[in-house]
Amino acid sequence: MARVVVDVMLKPEILDPQGQAIVGASDRLGFSGVREVRQGKRFEVEIDGEAGEAELAEVRRMAETLLANPVIEDFSLRVE
Amino acid sequence: MARVVVDVMLKPEILDPQGQAIVGASDRLGFSGVREVRQGKRFEVEIDGEAGEAELAEVRRMAETLLANPVIEDFSLRVE
Amino acid sequence: MARVVVDVMLKPEILDPQGQAIVGASDRLGFSGVREVRQGKRFEVEIDGEAGEAELAEVRRMAETLLANPVIEDFSLRVE
Amino acid sequence: MARVVVDVMLKPEILDPQGQAIVGASDRLGFSGVREVRQGKRFEVEIDGEAGEAELAEVRRMAETLLANPVIEDFSLRVE
Repeated sequence: MARVVVDVMLKPEILDPQGQAIVGASDRLGFSGVREVRQGKRFEVEIDGEAGEAELAEVRRMAETLLANPVIEDFSLRVE
Repeated sequence: MARVVVDVMLKPEILDPQGQAIVGASDRLGFSGVREVRQGKRFEVEIDGEAGEAELAEVRRMAETLLANPVIEDFSLRVE
Repeated sequence: MARVVVDVMLKPEILDPQGQAIVGASDRLGFSGVREVRQGKRFEVEIDGEAGEAELAEVRRMAETLLANPVIEDFSLRVE
Repeated sequence: MARVVVDVMLKPEILDPQGQAIVGASDRLGFSGVREVRQGKRFEVEIDGEAGEAELAEVRRMAETLLANPVIEDFSLRVE
């Protein structure tokens, strides 16, 4: 069994209001030095067998279809 | 400037229905071999200066207060 | 066709750190008078035909299985 | 004290892959008749005093700044 992690983040040019809420709250709580926060999603995908080329291609297709909207989000995947 | 990534996942003993929805949909789309999916959150925190011990302690306190609920979620942080 | 809305919220006794982040940020932005914010999920489910008793029972089972974790979340549904 | 509910949904023209995952999983679980699912966010905002015109205007500004990204999301608010 192998684990593939898929990180999904809003594209950099798209504003993330909830990340900004966290920056504002951090400042108020006295956490100085936080310049920006962006919130995304992390998926841990457990697959049978090894994470070979074919399996990674499958997880990539799955990410494009079910995990991320490529118009507004970027994603990356890696084996852990 | 440095970037600290905070990953927040439901604790392993807590069921993740949306992860299960993704498994079910994967199977139906012909993505065989997906055994489990768990969905969490990923925060990218940009801080001023270096990510030294003091800064990481601050991001850790921020994670405990604003990003994760330690009763139902685990989090981990790393410098990227 | 009918639309059933399913609202999913963390149970009241479970802390919602991201809601608290929004309260903190609101205060800092000068939005006075915000006492508490809780963040949940809203699902809009379009079903074929009428939303009769059988259909609502089915959406309810779907909510219990795929949309909410009844251990940590409450959900409610209504026809719109 | 009053409660204002803010519903935030992706704009209709923006694909919602996670909603589609739920449709796929529903079908596989035998929940027939589910045509579409869209997943959004629901915020319950508790404010001091009455939800008069001034308070609603404030929650609306809060929604535009901290809860929704008006480029990709629509929001609506109502007093409960």
